[in-house]
Amino acid sequence: MSALIPTWIPKDDILRVVRTALNEDIGTGDITSTLTVPTGIIISALMVSRSAGYLSGLPIVHEVYSQMHSGIVVHDMCCDGDRLEPGTIICTIEGDARTILTGERVALNFLQRLSAVTTLTRAFVERTVGTSAKIVDTRKTTPGLRAVEKYAVRCGGGHNHRFGLYDAVLIKDNHIAACGSINNAVTCARNNAPHTMTITVECDTMAQVHDAITAGADVILLDNMTPDELKRAVDLIGGRAVSEASGGITLETVQEIALTGVDIISVGALTHSAGSLDIGLDIEIKQ
Amino acid sequence: MSALIPTWIPKDDILRVVRTALNEDIGTGDITSTLTVPTGIIISALMVSRSAGYLSGLPIVHEVYSQMHSGIVVHDMCCDGDRLEPGTIICTIEGDARTILTGERVALNFLQRLSAVTTLTRAFVERTVGTSAKIVDTRKTTPGLRAVEKYAVRCGGGHNHRFGLYDAVLIKDNHIAACGSINNAVTCARNNAPHTMTITVECDTMAQVHDAITAGADVILLDNMTPDELKRAVDLIGGRAVSEASGGITLETVQEIALTGVDIISVGALTHSAGSLDIGLDIEIKQ
Amino acid sequence: MSALIPTWIPKDDILRVVRTALNEDIGTGDITSTLTVPTGIIISALMVSRSAGYLSGLPIVHEVYSQMHSGIVVHDMCCDGDRLEPGTIICTIEGDARTILTGERVALNFLQRLSAVTTLTRAFVERTVGTSAKIVDTRKTTPGLRAVEKYAVRCGGGHNHRFGLYDAVLIKDNHIAACGSINNAVTCARNNAPHTMTITVECDTMAQVHDAITAGADVILLDNMTPDELKRAVDLIGGRAVSEASGGITLETVQEIALTGVDIISVGALTHSAGSLDIGLDIEIKQ
Amino acid sequence: MSALIPTWIPKDDILRVVRTALNEDIGTGDITSTLTVPTGIIISALMVSRSAGYLSGLPIVHEVYSQMHSGIVVHDMCCDGDRLEPGTIICTIEGDARTILTGERVALNFLQRLSAVTTLTRAFVERTVGTSAKIVDTRKTTPGLRAVEKYAVRCGGGHNHRFGLYDAVLIKDNHIAACGSINNAVTCARNNAPHTMTITVECDTMAQVHDAITAGADVILLDNMTPDELKRAVDLIGGRAVSEASGGITLETVQEIALTGVDIISVGALTHSAGSLDIGLDIEIKQ
Amino acid sequence: MSALIPTWIPKDDILRVVRTALNEDIGTGDITSTLTVPTGIIISALMVSRSAGYLSGLPIVHEVYSQMHSGIVVHDMCCDGDRLEPGTIICTIEGDARTILTGERVALNFLQRLSAVTTLTRAFVERTVGTSAKIVDTRKTTPGLRAVEKYAVRCGGGHNHRFGLYDAVLIKDNHIAACGSINNAVTCARNNAPHTMTITVECDTMAQVHDAITAGADVILLDNMTPDELKRAVDLIGGRAVSEASGGITLETVQEIALTGVDIISVGALTHSAGSLDIGLDIEIKQ
Amino acid sequence: MSALIPTWIPKDDILRVVRTALNEDIGTGDITSTLTVPTGIIISALMVSRSAGYLSGLPIVHEVYSQMHSGIVVHDMCCDGDRLEPGTIICTIEGDARTILTGERVALNFLQRLSAVTTLTRAFVERTVGTSAKIVDTRKTTPGLRAVEKYAVRCGGGHNHRFGLYDAVLIKDNHIAACGSINNAVTCARNNAPHTMTITVECDTMAQVHDAITAGADVILLDNMTPDELKRAVDLIGGRAVSEASGGITLETVQEIALTGVDIISVGALTHSAGSLDIGLDIEIKQ
Repeated sequence: MSALIPTWIPKDDILRVVRTALNEDIGTGDITSTLTVPTGIIISALMVSRSAGYLSGLPIVHEVYSQMHSGIVVHDMCCDGDRLEPGTIICTIEGDARTILTGERVALNFLQRLSAVTTLTRAFVERTVGTSAKIVDTRKTTPGLRAVEKYAVRCGGGHNHRFGLYDAVLIKDNHIAACGSINNAVTCARNNAPHTMTITVECDTMAQVHDAITAGADVILLDNMTPDELKRAVDLIGGRAVSEASGGITLETVQEIALTGVDIISVGALTHSAGSLDIGLDIEIKQ
Repeated sequence: MSALIPTWIPKDDILRVVRTALNEDIGTGDITSTLTVPTGIIISALMVSRSAGYLSGLPIVHEVYSQMHSGIVVHDMCCDGDRLEPGTIICTIEGDARTILTGERVALNFLQRLSAVTTLTRAFVERTVGTSAKIVDTRKTTPGLRAVEKYAVRCGGGHNHRFGLYDAVLIKDNHIAACGSINNAVTCARNNAPHTMTITVECDTMAQVHDAITAGADVILLDNMTPDELKRAVDLIGGRAVSEASGGITLETVQEIALTGVDIISVGALTHSAGSLDIGLDIEIKQ
Repeated sequence: MSALIPTWIPKDDILRVVRTALNEDIGTGDITSTLTVPTGIIISALMVSRSAGYLSGLPIVHEVYSQMHSGIVVHDMCCDGDRLEPGTIICTIEGDARTILTGERVALNFLQRLSAVTTLTRAFVERTVGTSAKIVDTRKTTPGLRAVEKYAVRCGGGHNHRFGLYDAVLIKDNHIAACGSINNAVTCARNNAPHTMTITVECDTMAQVHDAITAGADVILLDNMTPDELKRAVDLIGGRAVSEASGGITLETVQEIALTGVDIISVGALTHSAGSLDIGLDIEIKQ
Repeated sequence: MSALIPTWIPKDDILRVVRTALNEDIGTGDITSTLTVPTGIIISALMVSRSAGYLSGLPIVHEVYSQMHSGIVVHDMCCDGDRLEPGTIICTIEGDARTILTGERVALNFLQRLSAVTTLTRAFVERTVGTSAKIVDTRKTTPGLRAVEKYAVRCGGGHNHRFGLYDAVLIKDNHIAACGSINNAVTCARNNAPHTMTITVECDTMAQVHDAITAGADVILLDNMTPDELKRAVDLIGGRAVSEASGGITLETVQEIALTGVDIISVGALTHSAGSLDIGLDIEIKQ
Repeated sequence: MSALIPTWIPKDDILRVVRTALNEDIGTGDITSTLTVPTGIIISALMVSRSAGYLSGLPIVHEVYSQMHSGIVVHDMCCDGDRLEPGTIICTIEGDARTILTGERVALNFLQRLSAVTTLTRAFVERTVGTSAKIVDTRKTTPGLRAVEKYAVRCGGGHNHRFGLYDAVLIKDNHIAACGSINNAVTCARNNAPHTMTITVECDTMAQVHDAITAGADVILLDNMTPDELKRAVDLIGGRAVSEASGGITLETVQEIALTGVDIISVGALTHSAGSLDIGLDIEIKQ
Repeated sequence: MSALIPTWIPKDDILRVVRTALNEDIGTGDITSTLTVPTGIIISALMVSRSAGYLSGLPIVHEVYSQMHSGIVVHDMCCDGDRLEPGTIICTIEGDARTILTGERVALNFLQRLSAVTTLTRAFVERTVGTSAKIVDTRKTTPGLRAVEKYAVRCGGGHNHRFGLYDAVLIKDNHIAACGSINNAVTCARNNAPHTMTITVECDTMAQVHDAITAGADVILLDNMTPDELKRAVDLIGGRAVSEASGGITLETVQEIALTGVDIISVGALTHSAGSLDIGLDIEIKQ
């Protein structure tokens, strides 16, 4: 991780996702390696990028081999967040051949997926350079992998939205309908939520933006608005709240949206449609 | 699920992935719904496809609401495997408003992801109609979601490869190198693996195909071969083993590969690059 | 729970704390009840307050008996948050004698502890009536019981502070020292934390309050200040941030502190020193 | 722990309670320390008592930092069971600043709570010096923390009652009612319980004491008796069983009760009303 | 279970052992039943004894099918503890064919193993009829199955020894060596163990028996003594403690040992060498 | 393990079974050792066979002491699979006396049980020397211990059948009945199971063997056939499938069955009736 990008990744989440993935793949044992690779063979392997992109997931590679065998040595040649070219060596892995082969697929599955998230995030971020807009993720993450995917977003220069339903108030149309009005919903939330929590209101119209500001919302989520509408909304907000654009934003449209002056652009595709970056393991038998 | 497609989905995996996803999203509570939606409001909601594709994930929607509240009624309007058009109603959900809103994102995250896998699988399968080739998945699945993603592949008319390192022998180049030769590796495996397990050998050349057949492999995995090479390999195998093509196969190339006569075509992209199908929840407050 | 006090209690936390407590107490079995109480005896029991206070924990009593036996019927005679007098019947419990006796201690341990938290919270809240100050809890909760203790605080008319280290930024002296200045710390946090998170700065002096306001903090935590200092700090803040008093506040001092005009008064004692409210189970053998 | 006080603390319980507490507090990450404290800062911290009392919980402080980071060094300056004065240094903690700050609250929450139990136990024990009565705890412990609280009781010179419903027979009024008589209940238990288990009978009257002795009880629990009644009961028992006084015993009454000659005095308040001993963490940034 | 044999079986242990066994056997799915048995087929099955013996394990059969499918109906035709002849119908099982077939092996594995324990226990018990000796188990149980195996012992008319290292003191030669003498060891234990716990001393010689009695042991475990030695030891003890014979006792020797007058005979073979009772499932397809 | 016997044992299974067994035995603590063995005593212990047989379980002994205490050193004097005579030293264990005593029973329970499985397997294997038949286990394993028991079978020179319902197709009479015919069942399975899975058909008659071969089964399980029938079946199969004999095979009958020419002989007794091999721990106090 570049020293300039503050980030973090919850240790317990790493433990859990790696344990789950290893159990899922290894089950009662890697029968092929057990039966064909003698014990005591030491190999050296290189994780190598086969395409261009940005890296994320090194702490998970370390965790995979740490859970499998205390004697495997993973030596980083890059940091998470770094640019990858085809052929870039990401890390070296040395130790018992059986263990390295058995863990290969799990390590690569994480690295390919997270690096794809980082690469896509970085593409969005680069298109907003020169504006004040931040690219943030959403709750449209892979079930079970939210914490590590949100880490990958940070590795790409993006920021995180709330982590779940528990750490911020986000009032949507159905909440408003159930509560009677934007004002009622914001008041209810303000009176009863922890004073440390912000309140976001999702708005489809200028009238709703006006109501949300009046009610004292901290963040105005501008849903599926055109750039023109976004500009008007930003003007209407006038700095009294944070403005957030959301809804179907793509690499093609993100720059125009950033230029409307919104503070935040949230993009579900960062985590739900990033695909997989091509990374492989090259093995050299040493002994 | 269409009655013609036999399938299954492990109950314990569904329990686990849903519990993990709900904990991840809800944490200490859906504070917005709690504070803005009064108790006792009953709503009716529709899960609606917003794009064309094929459905997968209904048992997970049921599990999400079953784990949250015994009183929510999910009524299926489609079966997994069915064709979706924009506007197709997938299921109806009736019950307590807070509960339905709180579970919405988790249910949709699963349904969008699994339906995308099913839709992509179906596209591959349709391009091989009229050939004897089966489309199968790989171990390049999302960590923690392998069992449900393999279910989604089956919903799309695809088949499953081995589930992990434990249920079949698959000898690759590094195993061969460690064991000395293809013959040694196959012999070692045959003598010591359960007699109920098949042995696959990954081959890059005709010479390897020849060796693998001679050694008695059950399946020959033909890695990254051109259609011409595949044809020659299929001829060489001559029905003495199952033939499997693998390596970078796309929607553009799959038909030509199927026409080479291979029995099996394995495609990592089915699970690692399917993205997300657009599905939404439309809510109507009833009372 | 009075209909006027919106509250919530995470279902998963209840499941976990009750399962842990039952395992801890029952282990390999309640040998006394098994050997002395014949099967098939039905009893009726009353949970009765033996002292004055305020109630909290009914959902946990339900969960205890639900986990033990599907046939036990718990019928609430009060709501969480209600006033208790010596002799108030809290709920009735009917069903298999062995089961009710086996679960008695676990149910009471929760009810006595949580009701004590609610009772103490209510005492603090009552002393601030007529002011705009809210009574809130802290992270000085019983390890493992935070979610249910924070629920008990809400039942007493209190509010919750952040739930943990993950859902709000709270900058203390050591963070400031590590970062160089209040301004650096707030800027670092604002640039990198989710835009949905608030930033609190703990201040010991008026100079720090001034710096925190200038740096754009959302909440100013005024630590261990006298009422006079608090008044000056509230004036200095002038509505530009939420003001929070903290540090050794007791039932004796809370009113004077509330009258200083602070928005929030956080009290560790609510959860770390509430003790136990005397509640008992009276049993009548029916058959 | 003073070498004269034999004690033990179950390793698995420590692991579990610490893991639960860390997850509860840290969740998806200590965002404040992550964003404001640079990596690589080494600090030295002192756990210091701010009041007088007796210490308990050092193994838990070690476990907290062991679970968080292998590089933190905790150096004990006291033993569990030792006397604390305001200013007594309990232990030093050296290592990565972020880690020490992130674990601070969890470590303190345990230490403050357990030391309060030890301190209160010690107060009861000191008031019975010169008598043969032992102070013991009850099952009125904090749900989930029984094993560590019982350890804290031992650190204060107290002893433990049974650990749960599973490791001794304790016949109360409802069991007697269900079984027909004290004699029936004791006989039933004696014939069917493991021969390694003792049988206690809770008695409210001299007649019951007489019956319990006759039936062969190992321990007579004398419930809510006055000192005079206790003396008479002890005489009646005449060494044929262990005598235990229980019910609302306080620091004010314990000496008089001990002087009645009872063998055991069980006190629920040791664990349900001990509160919190004031202990803090003083940090010095080293580098 | 005969109404005359009070017994119990910990609910949580049943849940755990059944869940573990089902996961172990079913893994990612019963592929055979899924692919060959259509959904919707209802069958009726009979669990039938194929040999003579005594039954144990019905609550586990119920739990197996309860965890698998809410619609399976298990109807008991026997009680645990009942005599089985070849052909005795133990229970009927009706419902979905796939589910019944999938759970068959797990249910039988438990039933065969536990019934073998019950049958062997019963054989030992019958050989001691007319004496006052009780047959009890040991800690030589199958790892993970102790609670259910101890239940099976009770079903056969046997009794349980301590459940583990935690619920009774048992002083062996190594403890005595470490402590200096039997007297020291018993005194240490008596002073510090809960007053509700008994103290057993394992003795090889009459001198040790004498020392243990003098030191106040509650139970004297007479290890590997001949019937003559046992008689002398029983005389020496003279009712001042419970006497327990242990060590290599078989069906051939147990009667002679019981006639020595010992109170307790503990037999490791009850759980470590019971083998398997032949029980099968007969299925009839109904529809 | 002899270098000539390739084997493996799933790390996660070892972790789980050892943790479960230690919790089960130790619970809230080994009270005897805690109260009678001073801390700091170092001992040396020998695991010694008290009877003849074959060894299995050393990795579990290591895991037991690794989970209990990092300072215990286990030094192997044998390999799993080795011949044991009365008096053979299996391993030495050095370190803290309390820890070694506390773990003794759990370590022995595993070692005695697994070595019995290995010993019995070896007896079956030796009776088939000179034939081409392999001895394999079944799914009649101890619930929760399948993976380690299958390891013990391999240590005795046996082989493993499928691990569970998930890793191979095995069509029995009820599947055939539900599917209409052997041909239907095999076709259904072949079309839909992973191409890496084999299909076994259980046959009672020659007609069924004929049908199974015609349908393309990979393995023919010959159930409860006499040696004469087996010979005829092997002839009928004629190398077109693997032949497996099963059903009530004993040490007395196995040689005759092996001489029929079957490839595989599966024996449930290997795991369900192996009993316990007598192994003990001899302790010498060093300091």
